[in-house]
Amino acid sequence: MRYQLGSDQIPQAWFNVAPHLPEPLAPPLHPGTGEPVGPDDLAPLFPMALIGQEVSAEEWIPIPAEVLDVLSLWRPTPLVRATRLEQALGTPARIYYKDESVSPAGSHKPNTAVPQAFYNKAEGISRIATETGAGQWGSAVSFASQLYGLECQVYMVAASYRQKPYRRVMMETWGGQVVPSPSNLTEFGRQLLKENPEHTGSLGIAISEAVEDAVGRADTHYALGSVLNHVLLHQTVIGLEAKRQLAEAGEGLPDVVIGSCGGGSNLGGIALPFVPDRNEGVRLVAVEPASCPTLTKGTYEYDFGDVAGMTPKLLMHTLGHDFIPPPIHAGGLRYHGDSPIICNLVHAGWMEAVAYPQGKVFEAAVQFARTQGSIPAPETSHAIRAAIDEALAAKESGEEKVILFSYSGHGLLDLAAYDDYLNGRLIDA
Amino acid sequence: MRYQLGSDQIPQAWFNVAPHLPEPLAPPLHPGTGEPVGPDDLAPLFPMALIGQEVSAEEWIPIPAEVLDVLSLWRPTPLVRATRLEQALGTPARIYYKDESVSPAGSHKPNTAVPQAFYNKAEGISRIATETGAGQWGSAVSFASQLYGLECQVYMVAASYRQKPYRRVMMETWGGQVVPSPSNLTEFGRQLLKENPEHTGSLGIAISEAVEDAVGRADTHYALGSVLNHVLLHQTVIGLEAKRQLAEAGEGLPDVVIGSCGGGSNLGGIALPFVPDRNEGVRLVAVEPASCPTLTKGTYEYDFGDVAGMTPKLLMHTLGHDFIPPPIHAGGLRYHGDSPIICNLVHAGWMEAVAYPQGKVFEAAVQFARTQGSIPAPETSHAIRAAIDEALAAKESGEEKVILFSYSGHGLLDLAAYDDYLNGRLIDA
Repeated sequence: MRYQLGSDQIPQAWFNVAPHLPEPLAPPLHPGTGEPVGPDDLAPLFPMALIGQEVSAEEWIPIPAEVLDVLSLWRPTPLVRATRLEQALGTPARIYYKDESVSPAGSHKPNTAVPQAFYNKAEGISRIATETGAGQWGSAVSFASQLYGLECQVYMVAASYRQKPYRRVMMETWGGQVVPSPSNLTEFGRQLLKENPEHTGSLGIAISEAVEDAVGRADTHYALGSVLNHVLLHQTVIGLEAKRQLAEAGEGLPDVVIGSCGGGSNLGGIALPFVPDRNEGVRLVAVEPASCPTLTKGTYEYDFGDVAGMTPKLLMHTLGHDFIPPPIHAGGLRYHGDSPIICNLVHAGWMEAVAYPQGKVFEAAVQFARTQGSIPAPETSHAIRAAIDEALAAKESGEEKVILFSYSGHGLLDLAAYDDYLNGRLIDA
Repeated sequence: MRYQLGSDQIPQAWFNVAPHLPEPLAPPLHPGTGEPVGPDDLAPLFPMALIGQEVSAEEWIPIPAEVLDVLSLWRPTPLVRATRLEQALGTPARIYYKDESVSPAGSHKPNTAVPQAFYNKAEGISRIATETGAGQWGSAVSFASQLYGLECQVYMVAASYRQKPYRRVMMETWGGQVVPSPSNLTEFGRQLLKENPEHTGSLGIAISEAVEDAVGRADTHYALGSVLNHVLLHQTVIGLEAKRQLAEAGEGLPDVVIGSCGGGSNLGGIALPFVPDRNEGVRLVAVEPASCPTLTKGTYEYDFGDVAGMTPKLLMHTLGHDFIPPPIHAGGLRYHGDSPIICNLVHAGWMEAVAYPQGKVFEAAVQFARTQGSIPAPETSHAIRAAIDEALAAKESGEEKVILFSYSGHGLLDLAAYDDYLNGRLIDA
């Protein structure tokens, strides 16, 4: 059963969780001076509109009409009740998923790529530099840049560049320029390649390269696909729509809201609109890979967002900014840190975190595909694993729980990973 | 702008065009005797319910509740107005497309795979054998078979098997068994491989293999993804929904309805519900590849549906049942014949046909991706090419034409073809 809102029912404003957090957000610190950064420090990277959103205390921030116009190419996205999965599990729980895979790029990422491209264009920028892990974010920025007539340079984590050639073609189809990272386009990349020409890269390294590119050119800004406050802000359309659709489905609040977590934007998108509902018993759950256990095993401290130490330091759970995770298939979850908003919630005990090895994750992915039909991205399958385990716990306890999770992307460009799993070649890290 | 119906607005009955055709359909002839075939001849291949639908004269055939339940996983599909494409073309035409790419398999094919699996299951069959060209049909049957607990054996045209490895993985994720065709699982396949171990195959050959498989096992039936009357019948949900959505968009009847045509099921799905509206000036247009120009250059006569001459002979436009088309990327359009219903309409002048070389087709595909966001399948891009040319003609004449086409599938598993096109490696056949 699918719950579908009309094109005129896209949220008209983003939900800013800042005023609802357990503690005020700690300021980002300048990488050189260690002092809190101001708007001027960020101006070489971001347009002023986004810098303003980054520090805003307003609960609601209106979405520009030009942005809504593009979002309406695929939004509102469907909320789907996974009745066939429920039946296969024999659970009394009702499982709903918010299907963000229907966007052109196939994930939730365009929800923020589109406003980011829009605000850059509006402030006279003509080129965007960015990084991508699994390729989802780079696809989203290539797509959004093309629609607003911007050039787009993507630094793609080398491990994913080699695992997922079709992601590159997708970006190029939308006019994006793509290089494997580390690359020889930046000083930092050249240095790493000199040390190791076969470097598999990481999200942190790719961020360093994109930032170096953007800082070096006046026509270029940087775009980040996760972690920052304005990125999570843009993703709240997911949870806002889901709330409305759950009501349409005759449900009250969900008992548990689940999202996979790499940098935190997908999780923030589905979960943040439910933070004020915590008092009514709504649980929020972050799911991460056991091989990159930031929230479950990292320390809560100030750390750089990138590997080279060029970005401001953020207060977050971190495995250390030089941590290089193993090349699991969920490339989008290979990040040493996490969004300060997410970490703030986890640190205060307002949000739970669990970690799974990828064998258990792919088992859930295949069960989902064989009951509901759709083939999920490896990142998304982390949330599916957790949702299934919640549903099995409900079966055990006999609870009629309502489970909501974000179906953040499809796995149609990750089929090589399924091939590995189905043929016993998957490393169960 | 997207027009989305509720889950409760899926059509409750299929539209049977038979009573509306210009001439009665000529009967299929037995491959051996040359006499009209009866239900008993078809019983080794199909369940009785489908044989009944094949010859039905009823205008409306109710869709079983168990089928509607599965179709509701993705139906009704959106109707989208391609306003950004219109703006890029500078046309006064209004272009609408019916987005069948949102199904789990990524195309219109599950619309018939699901009822076919259902009727087979209902009549005690436990295994389905079928063929696939580009992989869309094999994916759809694997998916549908999995949902009803049937085994599925897919013979995949060898050219596509090699060009599109991820289609195989997709089928395997849904539990399907896939072999390249010609294969050594059948007598006919072994014979062809003996003559040429590097045989690239064709849809006609793969059909012969699947039919041989089904005839040889009592637990197995055959499933065809196009051509036959019951297949086109199941696809009419596309056009029926589109009609309703056009009304919701404030439009009357479209001026022209366009579909790409391989065997004719996608085209039939969008176009057949508009056959009764021909009197009010609705034009119907079939689009095919210049390298396999069945409707535009074939002869209208009785011919076999397969290469080996095992299937009944059908009255249709044909290039000869031993015609092997070049391995263009639109594998799903590589078929020597066409649906008798489509040919009946074209022969009477009730439907037009045009053919394009694949270079012009990919040019249209990239223009679509860069304006509307979504990346279309090569097959689908034939319809996009024709829709763009209709819109440009409207610009020339200043007409406010309403154009409707079927967006039959996405191109996310065809990105190697885009890579070829973007890098000048595409053969412009």
